[in-house]
Amino acid sequence: MIVDRQAHGGHPHPPMLERLVFFSDAVFAIAITLLVIEIGAPHLPHGAGDIAHLQQLAQRIPNFIGFFVSFWVIAAFWGGHHSAFGLAGHYAPGLIGPNLAMLCAVAFMPFATAYMSENYGARVPAVLYNSVLLVTALLNLRLVRKVTAPPYLADGADSFQVATCRGRPWGVVVGATLALIVSFIAPFFAQMTLATIPLWIAIAVRRTTRGVPRP
Amino acid sequence: MIVDRQAHGGHPHPPMLERLVFFSDAVFAIAITLLVIEIGAPHLPHGAGDIAHLQQLAQRIPNFIGFFVSFWVIAAFWGGHHSAFGLAGHYAPGLIGPNLAMLCAVAFMPFATAYMSENYGARVPAVLYNSVLLVTALLNLRLVRKVTAPPYLADGADSFQVATCRGRPWGVVVGATLALIVSFIAPFFAQMTLATIPLWIAIAVRRTTRGVPRP
Amino acid sequence: MIVDRQAHGGHPHPPMLERLVFFSDAVFAIAITLLVIEIGAPHLPHGAGDIAHLQQLAQRIPNFIGFFVSFWVIAAFWGGHHSAFGLAGHYAPGLIGPNLAMLCAVAFMPFATAYMSENYGARVPAVLYNSVLLVTALLNLRLVRKVTAPPYLADGADSFQVATCRGRPWGVVVGATLALIVSFIAPFFAQMTLATIPLWIAIAVRRTTRGVPRP
Amino acid sequence: MIVDRQAHGGHPHPPMLERLVFFSDAVFAIAITLLVIEIGAPHLPHGAGDIAHLQQLAQRIPNFIGFFVSFWVIAAFWGGHHSAFGLAGHYAPGLIGPNLAMLCAVAFMPFATAYMSENYGARVPAVLYNSVLLVTALLNLRLVRKVTAPPYLADGADSFQVATCRGRPWGVVVGATLALIVSFIAPFFAQMTLATIPLWIAIAVRRTTRGVPRP
Repeated sequence: MIVDRQAHGGHPHPPMLERLVFFSDAVFAIAITLLVIEIGAPHLPHGAGDIAHLQQLAQRIPNFIGFFVSFWVIAAFWGGHHSAFGLAGHYAPGLIGPNLAMLCAVAFMPFATAYMSENYGARVPAVLYNSVLLVTALLNLRLVRKVTAPPYLADGADSFQVATCRGRPWGVVVGATLALIVSFIAPFFAQMTLATIPLWIAIAVRRTTRGVPRP
Repeated sequence: MIVDRQAHGGHPHPPMLERLVFFSDAVFAIAITLLVIEIGAPHLPHGAGDIAHLQQLAQRIPNFIGFFVSFWVIAAFWGGHHSAFGLAGHYAPGLIGPNLAMLCAVAFMPFATAYMSENYGARVPAVLYNSVLLVTALLNLRLVRKVTAPPYLADGADSFQVATCRGRPWGVVVGATLALIVSFIAPFFAQMTLATIPLWIAIAVRRTTRGVPRP
Repeated sequence: MIVDRQAHGGHPHPPMLERLVFFSDAVFAIAITLLVIEIGAPHLPHGAGDIAHLQQLAQRIPNFIGFFVSFWVIAAFWGGHHSAFGLAGHYAPGLIGPNLAMLCAVAFMPFATAYMSENYGARVPAVLYNSVLLVTALLNLRLVRKVTAPPYLADGADSFQVATCRGRPWGVVVGATLALIVSFIAPFFAQMTLATIPLWIAIAVRRTTRGVPRP
Repeated sequence: MIVDRQAHGGHPHPPMLERLVFFSDAVFAIAITLLVIEIGAPHLPHGAGDIAHLQQLAQRIPNFIGFFVSFWVIAAFWGGHHSAFGLAGHYAPGLIGPNLAMLCAVAFMPFATAYMSENYGARVPAVLYNSVLLVTALLNLRLVRKVTAPPYLADGADSFQVATCRGRPWGVVVGATLALIVSFIAPFFAQMTLATIPLWIAIAVRRTTRGVPRP
């Protein structure tokens, strides 16, 4: 009993581009959800009071911050991937390598997050975290620029959307570079530097969309 | 060798809304399955008797309850997401933020579950768990209301289904609020309060669907 | 910038049945892959000889067997889900509950596997494992019978395929029942009883397909 | 409220081949992302200096190498699966068994990676890792050859692409065999042997595509 699957005008099935995106989504989703596993729930003796519990939670504040920062960092990479591939209309095997390279860096984030959170304020973990982040940002920049240009770009894609999409990765690169510099000098404040990323994204997008007509 | 992927009447491929839903499903599925990892299988010396094993399992009863309660809580959020996005027919980037915020709270549930289960009956873990649940319920309420209203709502969506969908999140908000109050006063009974959620959902749905013609 | 997603003849998008199946697949995939995490890699002192390493691996033989048995058990449930939903052509919310119930049992399998493997030969872990398996098999039976009958069954579905699909779950129920009985009497041999499942499936399918014309 | 899902010219929905691929992608994605979980973040006393941190990281160099090697090995299997199923146009249940067998070996890779990394240079872990790799490569070879031949191959699939696809798995088989031999003799150098895989793939593809007209 053979079922014919060649619907969709003779295109191979499942479509290659969709599967690439699907696999990437699964890796993003797992990396983003594994972050919480690394925290480790405190287990106190039976009858421990509220103060003892609050102290345990207070000790884990860096872990909670680490979870939230990395959740939004990975979420931002996912968002960029989502918009960039939304503008793609063609597939070629040349996308696989750059996409996997970026996913490899993303898959490493839970380790960098756990190490930085467990040793908050120390220089080496902060440098490692922000180096991983910078590498991810650069691999993301390469991927987004590749996928939003010919031959991958969909015919008739809106040029304003394309320019926006191509600007955003620069903002993450700038923010990660700054955080890396700060983590050498004042590791305790490195993670706060990441809060400036939206600002760099706004500036970068303003530059790449300058003169591009809005849709 | 470039493969053209622009089928489906010129829409970008893969479709943006489908990918958003897909990514959310993966996060829900991972969070719901990671719950069991936190229990930790007992390892007894070789030759340990049935009684010793049953005692070990009995000690883990709060963990088992925690697993089942959180499984159904996350499953209920997934079910609501499933029906709400089933009514959506349009996509805009404005959905991404509220959706990620809700997923962030869901991704934190395995930690809250493990902490509450490992210290069953203590006030702080119960308060933390039910606070996380209430935050998730509120973020879910915001998302569901957004996605089942213009400009996202599909043209010609059935108004009874829409009203049902928009009523359900209120039930979870009420249940989580009650459980949070109980967890301050009598933490041991807080989780049982969650069993009243179906009742609040039924009342909330009755209110939002009042006067709406059934399909 | 709103993108219209109402392709596919006015059907909601993403399709409800596809998303239900997708979410289930993710839960199956995570449960099946988490099994290996529970084994725990041995770490020997630097310079430890081959004999020491082989002894450590030998101690983990029950874990390896546990991994393989549970991998194929979950894979078999996935296979049945795959064929049953392949015959479905219609969606209604009534599928969500029975599907989630089955997934809840599947998500618990990694714990049951780890506990049974870590204490191989003990009665309580074997009884627990095979009870979880029997519950999963019964929930699977209910789900498969529901989805391969009206109103869910696709119009014009082949009756031989339907009969095959509806027969298979009975084989797992019989095998799990036998393994549960054996695990009370001779827990060491309970897992081997599971090897008879293909036989019960063959008998069950023969019964349900009797008299049904082959396609 | 029953929603009819029989779009796509009467084909069952969700499509069987797409779901098989989807489930496989999820298993690949989880296995590839779980690799990092096994590393384990170092936790140093508060105030530990940079040297102490760098020493801890230096001790984990085998774990980092293990993560990267296994990431790319699993990514390569995914890439081969992606191109092979991209050439498939028909579905039959006979694909399920060989596909699950390959996934079972992939799901075991995180254990083999962790064991090899934690005991880098020891013979038994290196032999185990490369045996698992060879088994995976052989199961992958069987699957790819099956799916790129009738009755699964899409009608009108390009013969050069088919020949390329069928050649690649041989390269991994040769590389894994060499690494297995080296791991018996000089386990420390076994993982470096894997770096020769691209060479064997190039040779294998040259052989299988010889005389096949380029598209």
